[in-house]
Amino acid sequence: MHWTQMLIPTMREVPKDAEATSHQLMIRAGMIRKLSSGVYSYLPLGFRVLQKVAAIIRDEMNKAGAEEILMPAIQPLDLWKKSGRYSVLKDILIEANTRGNQKIVFGPTHEEVVTELLTGYVKSYQDLPKILFQIQTKFRDEARPRFGVIRSKEFLMKDAYSFDTDFESLDKNYQKMYQAYCKIFSRCGLDYISVSADPGAMGGDVSHEFMVKIPFGEDRVVTCEGVEGAWNREVASGVSPEIEKDESLYQMEVFDTPGISTIEQLQKKYKINAQSLVKTLIYVADGQVVACLLRGDHELAENKLKKILKAKEVHLADEATIKKVTGAPVGFAGPIGLKDIKIVADISVQHMSNFVVGANEADKHLKNVNLERDFKVARFDDIRYVEEGDLHPESGRPLKMEPALEIGHVFKLGTKYSSSLDLTFLDPKGDRKHVVMGCYGIGVNRIIAAAIEQNHDEKGICWPLHIAPFDVIIVTTNESHEESKKVANELYAGLQDAGIDVLYDDRQDRAGVKFNDAELIGFPIQVVVGERNLKNNEIEIKIRKSLKINKLSISSAVEHITQWVKNDQY
Amino acid sequence: MHWTQMLIPTMREVPKDAEATSHQLMIRAGMIRKLSSGVYSYLPLGFRVLQKVAAIIRDEMNKAGAEEILMPAIQPLDLWKKSGRYSVLKDILIEANTRGNQKIVFGPTHEEVVTELLTGYVKSYQDLPKILFQIQTKFRDEARPRFGVIRSKEFLMKDAYSFDTDFESLDKNYQKMYQAYCKIFSRCGLDYISVSADPGAMGGDVSHEFMVKIPFGEDRVVTCEGVEGAWNREVASGVSPEIEKDESLYQMEVFDTPGISTIEQLQKKYKINAQSLVKTLIYVADGQVVACLLRGDHELAENKLKKILKAKEVHLADEATIKKVTGAPVGFAGPIGLKDIKIVADISVQHMSNFVVGANEADKHLKNVNLERDFKVARFDDIRYVEEGDLHPESGRPLKMEPALEIGHVFKLGTKYSSSLDLTFLDPKGDRKHVVMGCYGIGVNRIIAAAIEQNHDEKGICWPLHIAPFDVIIVTTNESHEESKKVANELYAGLQDAGIDVLYDDRQDRAGVKFNDAELIGFPIQVVVGERNLKNNEIEIKIRKSLKINKLSISSAVEHITQWVKNDQY
Repeated sequence: MHWTQMLIPTMREVPKDAEATSHQLMIRAGMIRKLSSGVYSYLPLGFRVLQKVAAIIRDEMNKAGAEEILMPAIQPLDLWKKSGRYSVLKDILIEANTRGNQKIVFGPTHEEVVTELLTGYVKSYQDLPKILFQIQTKFRDEARPRFGVIRSKEFLMKDAYSFDTDFESLDKNYQKMYQAYCKIFSRCGLDYISVSADPGAMGGDVSHEFMVKIPFGEDRVVTCEGVEGAWNREVASGVSPEIEKDESLYQMEVFDTPGISTIEQLQKKYKINAQSLVKTLIYVADGQVVACLLRGDHELAENKLKKILKAKEVHLADEATIKKVTGAPVGFAGPIGLKDIKIVADISVQHMSNFVVGANEADKHLKNVNLERDFKVARFDDIRYVEEGDLHPESGRPLKMEPALEIGHVFKLGTKYSSSLDLTFLDPKGDRKHVVMGCYGIGVNRIIAAAIEQNHDEKGICWPLHIAPFDVIIVTTNESHEESKKVANELYAGLQDAGIDVLYDDRQDRAGVKFNDAELIGFPIQVVVGERNLKNNEIEIKIRKSLKINKLSISSAVEHITQWVKNDQY
Repeated sequence: MHWTQMLIPTMREVPKDAEATSHQLMIRAGMIRKLSSGVYSYLPLGFRVLQKVAAIIRDEMNKAGAEEILMPAIQPLDLWKKSGRYSVLKDILIEANTRGNQKIVFGPTHEEVVTELLTGYVKSYQDLPKILFQIQTKFRDEARPRFGVIRSKEFLMKDAYSFDTDFESLDKNYQKMYQAYCKIFSRCGLDYISVSADPGAMGGDVSHEFMVKIPFGEDRVVTCEGVEGAWNREVASGVSPEIEKDESLYQMEVFDTPGISTIEQLQKKYKINAQSLVKTLIYVADGQVVACLLRGDHELAENKLKKILKAKEVHLADEATIKKVTGAPVGFAGPIGLKDIKIVADISVQHMSNFVVGANEADKHLKNVNLERDFKVARFDDIRYVEEGDLHPESGRPLKMEPALEIGHVFKLGTKYSSSLDLTFLDPKGDRKHVVMGCYGIGVNRIIAAAIEQNHDEKGICWPLHIAPFDVIIVTTNESHEESKKVANELYAGLQDAGIDVLYDDRQDRAGVKFNDAELIGFPIQVVVGERNLKNNEIEIKIRKSLKINKLSISSAVEHITQWVKNDQY
């Protein structure tokens, strides 16, 4: 391609509304354009990257034995009610009515549709196992679309679904997909890690997230030096470094705290350390009220609570419920005097003594409260998110927490969807059983943003070779110089014939402008055709990542560059 | 690929709810599955065809200098109001509300979005000309989704948009796209024609439709033997064969027609020929009432009426308006006695005498009515659709009308969108001008249906080579015969290495079942490995289209087949 024939609207200024580096650079490199909040068009360069990423994904999916299909975005709302997910995901669903008052949703994911699809075709165990995938547009009414294509309302997803007769067979497909994901992310030039994660709304028991550590990551990845594995903060376990316990238990006392209902206020006004406080959160788990105790500086992990209570759904109790069970307004709940309510406490509470709690009475707290002596806990368990400074439960070494972005997620769904949507098969004995499923997603657009976050410098993007919009850019220092143009065109033709993806910047602009654009966009290899070097029958090669410059003879340039690109070594 | 590893759910029964042959065969060949009315999933074989068609389109678009982009499905409703198309297309728009009460539509087409996109980048005449295209999913709330993927609510479209400084330059891009379309449809194996068409809701003056003649076509293509060109029925002109005029004009008479308000009823009850009737249709054109006269058996063409009246919008008057202007209930309107209303008559009315019209009075008609003597017509013009039996206006030969399906449409839009959405450029003199646009659409899914409609027999589909799900299928007559399997695997590997798209039917089924499936799906070349032929080191080749069978030596088979496929000659 020639630059002047393409739409490549680069800009020098940093766009004001773009926080993330990748967002800024995608706009500045002329890759995307915002249409409205969380909705983007891909311009030619951006589309080329999107296609290259999709091609890598497609290739690895095919190699792993997955078959490509294409399911519709329009999905009957009823299907979501049937699977039970309408109530869970309705906040992000984009719903519409079509003629005849048909209620539809624009698919945020396709577990329901693919399960329904298979009901038409799976009869017996002989029809299994099977893996299907698609690269298709998803729609989600995000509460806070941001960071450009990282969190948007419309995005391209590769979603794959596996169907097996049993969990053993699911394990095999899960492994296949897991391995394929590793290959995909490697080929896209990403420095990624896989972490144990919570299946969340997707359902099922086991899941792994593929994460890249980037400053704007909305997730937190937990690791520990010398310990294998990594965890999403949601599922990580940690131990608080022990705080010295008071040797004696003091007398419990009521003290007045007029209008003071938050931990921040207690800390500020009464100089009470959050680590000496126990907060009492009133939760409702499947309709049952539970009091959850946590150290003042800890945060409850609802997914953990759900798991230990074996509840389908948990949420904070509303004001009325809190008043009813504690007898006090919100902000003064405490464990003492609660009747007929199960008390669950985080493990870290076990090591505390002489702590402060709410008094179950307006404007009052209790101090020097102690376990066993003053109240009883039904169960101690891990119900909180780990914090910076926590220790690994086994090694005792400190946990490290870093911001990360999820780019892929694999789930063992089990029979969640096959039960609710009735996808069954006959086993060899003729017994009807539910199909065992897995699902596997990759955010195609996010790979692009992640690659930029991990591969850029102050001049712009440094594309990993396999997903660069072009492998090579040819720049003449003076496009009016006939000999330069001739050599540039010959190199262009030669590289094209060799199967190299090459762009020729044929603009009549100053060399500096063209160099800056080439570095902003970040083509891996820059070929510079300049008048001076031509006198020695040479051209210059600039490697984007290292910014190193080498000279090559014109006659050997095509062969050298082709070798570099084919071997990804330059 | 091996058959047993793929999801290919063929069926022998003809699905009950599928009218069109292509719809029946796509279901039976396991290519698509219906999710809900007008909404389909593509299964692996269907998806392969879709991808091949898309690849051909992409290739020809690139060759024609169009650049690929990807615009979002989510479009702000405001943009549609600004372009003025919300009121025109609102019936087919799928609307939704997202958070913060943002009103969106799911794009049925992208003129608005692409025009807005270019406003960010087009500054001067030097930024033009430009052609952008995408292959993207469109959403339309069709009143009657039917014929499978022919008319569906969600479909894949290739839409391209050209941007020029003037109409002369637009003509060049229009020609480029027109030629590219011819190449695309030829490569897809379609027998197509291009017809002059009405731009309709898209706007602009000139447009051509690409049509394939098929029994279930919802359009009518008009041609005339010995006359160059073809027309959509909407824009075709025809002359009614002359009906002998009565020599004398009879006395006009009122006659009672109690409860008879339709032409069918008049014909049936009073034996009046529709050709002796003149029907009076009360229309509203941009708020102005017009009476339109047509011969009883003719049908008014609103697009023609709109054009001759230079109206933005025309529609049939409602009951109240009809009562008000005619003084009679609906069904009794006539030209005599209408006050202050312009009367427009179709040319064919000019040749009529002693005809019947409504009396502008309930339950009464008039007979022996004559032009000039009894009422005056403001204008005679062509305001009707041509009918079977009409004659070509110049050659005088009869017009031929055939059902056809639109698979592509090219439009010269002019400045319709650049004016309403303010897309301008500075010309060399520094004057600000509106960009001149064109748009070019192809229904990707429809190409598949059209190819099947034109290429099938009683056994199933006969795919044109370039869009077949696989070029070649290998079938063993006995999959338990080790030698057969060995040869089949060798041929499979050999063809794959030669770059041939090959499927190996490795099912343990009877040969008959496998042959039937191969013919139902319609792979162009069938390779049959049978025990008997192996004794002579031979295999059989069956050509799907001709059903001809040839023998080839095993050693030469790969080379022969490869040559056939590469040259598309077999």
